[in-house]
Amino acid sequence: MMDRIELSVLLDYYGKLLTEKQQKIMNLYYNEDLSLSEIAELNNTSRQAIYDLIKRCYKQLLTYEDKLCLMKQDIELESQINLIIDNLNKIQGSNNDDIKIIQDIKSILEKL
Amino acid sequence: MMDRIELSVLLDYYGKLLTEKQQKIMNLYYNEDLSLSEIAELNNTSRQAIYDLIKRCYKQLLTYEDKLCLMKQDIELESQINLIIDNLNKIQGSNNDDIKIIQDIKSILEKL
Repeated sequence: MMDRIELSVLLDYYGKLLTEKQQKIMNLYYNEDLSLSEIAELNNTSRQAIYDLIKRCYKQLLTYEDKLCLMKQDIELESQINLIIDNLNKIQGSNNDDIKIIQDIKSILEKL
Repeated sequence: MMDRIELSVLLDYYGKLLTEKQQKIMNLYYNEDLSLSEIAELNNTSRQAIYDLIKRCYKQLLTYEDKLCLMKQDIELESQINLIIDNLNKIQGSNNDDIKIIQDIKSILEKL
């Protein structure tokens, strides 16, 4: 089982592929930290129904990641960006222009 | 309507979210350039059935892009990478080490 944090991250990537109701309930459980009973009460349904929905969505999110690998790709991208920043830090540069350009590149990288 | 090329690109991003049969037929139509009738014959079904399937998958792929924006994000990433490369090309550098590092960074960027 993935922990709450990992699942919350998957929800950021793939939540929009769930229905609005599913997104709402997954958000209450994984981000707002409500209990199954609390969510059931809010939705006028049983604890079991909420449990089933969360379990189904949990599997669905894992399937999406298995197929599209967005989280995995982003982790790799971040690692490559860090590698580039490490390399940029090694450049001595010949003048203030160089230093300014390196700073500009870092700013772009930080926003990726 | 998106043209064949655009749709083929969307298929690269989201094809795995379709069923195997859908992927196969969309691939024959958008990448292998087979006609509806040819695909229908290959699958022992009617031209209309293939047309309906392709239309449904076409809409599905647009919905995925509308929700996840992977193609849009990749286009933006590419534009940022080009901007970084332009900036790297402006660095004069103080020695051969700098030039080597800049080359290394470009190699990493080209693989992103």
